[in-house]
Amino acid sequence: MATLGLIEYESASAEVRAVYDDIMATRKTDWINNFWKAIARDPATLRRTWESIKEVMAPGALDAVTKEMIYLAVSATNQCGYCIASHTAAARKAGMTDQMFAELMAVAGMANETNRLASGYQVEIDERFKPR
Amino acid sequence: MATLGLIEYESASAEVRAVYDDIMATRKTDWINNFWKAIARDPATLRRTWESIKEVMAPGALDAVTKEMIYLAVSATNQCGYCIASHTAAARKAGMTDQMFAELMAVAGMANETNRLASGYQVEIDERFKPR
Amino acid sequence: MATLGLIEYESASAEVRAVYDDIMATRKTDWINNFWKAIARDPATLRRTWESIKEVMAPGALDAVTKEMIYLAVSATNQCGYCIASHTAAARKAGMTDQMFAELMAVAGMANETNRLASGYQVEIDERFKPR
Amino acid sequence: MATLGLIEYESASAEVRAVYDDIMATRKTDWINNFWKAIARDPATLRRTWESIKEVMAPGALDAVTKEMIYLAVSATNQCGYCIASHTAAARKAGMTDQMFAELMAVAGMANETNRLASGYQVEIDERFKPR
Amino acid sequence: MATLGLIEYESASAEVRAVYDDIMATRKTDWINNFWKAIARDPATLRRTWESIKEVMAPGALDAVTKEMIYLAVSATNQCGYCIASHTAAARKAGMTDQMFAELMAVAGMANETNRLASGYQVEIDERFKPR
Amino acid sequence: MATLGLIEYESASAEVRAVYDDIMATRKTDWINNFWKAIARDPATLRRTWESIKEVMAPGALDAVTKEMIYLAVSATNQCGYCIASHTAAARKAGMTDQMFAELMAVAGMANETNRLASGYQVEIDERFKPR
Repeated sequence: MATLGLIEYESASAEVRAVYDDIMATRKTDWINNFWKAIARDPATLRRTWESIKEVMAPGALDAVTKEMIYLAVSATNQCGYCIASHTAAARKAGMTDQMFAELMAVAGMANETNRLASGYQVEIDERFKPR
Repeated sequence: MATLGLIEYESASAEVRAVYDDIMATRKTDWINNFWKAIARDPATLRRTWESIKEVMAPGALDAVTKEMIYLAVSATNQCGYCIASHTAAARKAGMTDQMFAELMAVAGMANETNRLASGYQVEIDERFKPR
Repeated sequence: MATLGLIEYESASAEVRAVYDDIMATRKTDWINNFWKAIARDPATLRRTWESIKEVMAPGALDAVTKEMIYLAVSATNQCGYCIASHTAAARKAGMTDQMFAELMAVAGMANETNRLASGYQVEIDERFKPR
Repeated sequence: MATLGLIEYESASAEVRAVYDDIMATRKTDWINNFWKAIARDPATLRRTWESIKEVMAPGALDAVTKEMIYLAVSATNQCGYCIASHTAAARKAGMTDQMFAELMAVAGMANETNRLASGYQVEIDERFKPR
Repeated sequence: MATLGLIEYESASAEVRAVYDDIMATRKTDWINNFWKAIARDPATLRRTWESIKEVMAPGALDAVTKEMIYLAVSATNQCGYCIASHTAAARKAGMTDQMFAELMAVAGMANETNRLASGYQVEIDERFKPR
Repeated sequence: MATLGLIEYESASAEVRAVYDDIMATRKTDWINNFWKAIARDPATLRRTWESIKEVMAPGALDAVTKEMIYLAVSATNQCGYCIASHTAAARKAGMTDQMFAELMAVAGMANETNRLASGYQVEIDERFKPR
C-alpha cells in the first residue's frame, strides 16, 4: 500500500520541500518528524495543517511550553500514542521539567475523572456558571 | 428519583459539611457549586474527590491558571458541558483573559485535529521520540 | 424537519408496531421511550438494534443489573446525556441501589483517570499481561 | 491466557464455520481477518456482529465505498488502530483512491477540531437547526 | 461574562465582517450561524477556521454531501450536540435524504461498536493490513 | 529521556517502597506492574492514585469482579491498550470467566453503538427519565 509511505525530503516536490524548509527554520531543527512526512502525501493538508500549527503554537498570551502542555493533555485524553510521544518531546524541548510533566498529568487525569462524575451524576449547570 | 437531588449545606451530615467548609475556605468563597452537592450523595466519593482535587490543583511547578486551563482543555475535548462551564469560570477567576482563552481553545482544537490525522495516516513513532 | 419527529404507536406501520409490542412484552412495561420512537424512522435500524439489545441484555453469565451498570459506565464515559438518563432508570428498575450507583460511578471515574495516566506516561504492557 | 487466541477455520465449530463461510462468500475473498477469529471465541457475538455488519454495509442509498469511508472516519476519531488498518484496506478495495482518502482525513480532522471549538465556546444551537 | 456573547454583523469589526461576507457568499445564504458568531470573539481563530473549512469542504474527489455526512458521523461519535444539529442541517441542504441519513447513522453506530470489540478482544493487526 | 524509565523496588525511595509494599500486600502478590513503576516518578501521584484505587476497588455493594469488569468496559471504550491488558488480567484473577468476558464485551459494544444513535438522532430525554 504505497500511499502509506513517508515522503522524504529528497523525493519531495518543490511544494512539499517549501513546507519542510519552513518547519525546520521555524523550529530551529534539521529534521522532519514522521507526522509531516506522512501527511505530505496530500500537499494541501500538509500546507494547511502546518500553517495552522505555526500560527496557533506561536507564543502569544500563552508561552510555548504552556501551549505544548495543553497539546499533550489533549493527546493523552484522546489516547493518541504518536501525539503523546511527539508532544512530550516538544514540551520538554520548550522547557517542561519532570515536575511540570507530573503536575500536568495529575490535572489531566483528575479532569478525565470528574468529567464522568459530572455527567454520570447528571449535574445541572449552576446559574452563575451560565454564559451571559 | 430522590437520589438525584442535591445535598444542601443545611441538610448535610457533619461529614459532608466538613468537606463543604474546607472547599469554601480553600477557594475563598461562600458557596458550593452543584458538582459537590451532587456527589455528596456518596460522602466517600465527595471526600476522596475533594482531597484529590485540592492536592492536584494547588499551585506547584504549574500555577493555578495554567492548571485550570489544562482542566478546561480536557473538558472541551471530552464534551462535558458542566465541566466546561464550571472550569471556564474557575479559569477566569484565576486570571485567564479573553486572549488566553482564545489561544487555549485554538491549541485544544488543533490537537484534536492532528490527533486524528496521526492515527488515520497510521504514523509510526519516530525513533527519537521513543521513551528510553 | 419532519424526519426528526418521533414515531408514535398509533401512526406506526405494522412492522414498527411489532417491534414496539415485543419491547413492551420483553420489558413488562406499557410504554416506549423516545430512543425507539426516534430510530423507528428507519425500521431496519429499529428491528436490528432491538434484536441485538434483546439478545445482549438478557441475563446470562451476568445478571440484568450488572449489564445495565456496564451500560451506564460506558454511557457516562461517552458523555451521552440521553443514555445516562435512560440507563440510570433501567439500572434502578433492575435493582441498582444508591450505594451500587455510587460505587459504579467511583470505579468509572477512576478508570477514566488512570486510562490517561497510563497513556500519558507511555506505560508499556507487562509481559505477563500480554495475550498468549 | 488461551481465551485470547484466534479461532482458525480448521478448529472451528460448525456454527462458527458457517459464519466464516458466509463472510468469505459475501466479501468474495478466501480468508478471514483476525477480528472475526477473535470474537469467534463467543459464537453468539460473532454471528450477531456479522449479521449486523452484513446488513449495514450492503450498498443501499449509500454505496460501498462511502460506507467504508464513514467507518474509517469513525475509527480514526476513536483512535482504534486495528479498525483504521482494516477499514483503510476495505475502503481501498471498494474503490477509495489516494485523493479520496486525503479528503476524508481532512474532513474528519476538521470535524474533530470544530467539535471542540463548538463545545469550548459553549455555542447554543441556532433556532433553525433545532429538530422540529 | 461578556466574552461568551455572540458577535453580530452590525457590531463586528471590518476584519470579522469580511469573513462573514465570505461565509454567506460561499454558502449562498444570508445569515451566519452561532458557531461563527461565537468564535468571532477571536478574529484569528475565526479567519483560520473558516479558511480551513472552506478549503476542506469544497467538492473535490468527494462531493459536498459525502463530506457533510462524514462530518456528521464524526460529530455523532464525539457527542457534540451543536455540531450534530448544524451538520444534519447542512447535509440535508447538500442533498442527504432520510434514507441516506438512516444508513449513515447505522454505519457510524456499528463502527463505534466494533471499534470497542476490536480493542477489548485485543485483536492484532493482520499482516496484510499493515501499511507498507 | 530518563524520566520515562520505570522505578524498580530496589532503587525506589522509602516513600515509594511503602506504596509498593501496600500494593503487594493488598493484592496478595509479589510483583508490581509497570503502571505503578511509571507513575512512581511522581511519588505524590503514586500515593494518591493508589489510595484512591484501593478505596474504590475494595468490595462493597459491588463485588471485586463486577468492579474489575466495569473498569474493563471503560478502558475498552477509551481504547487504552495498557488498561485493557492489565484489567483483563485483573478481572480474570477476580473470577471473570470466558462467558462473563464475552457478555461484558457484547454489552460495552452495544452501549457504544446506541450512544451514537441516541445522539445522532438527537433524541430528547423522556420526562420520566429526568432526574427529580
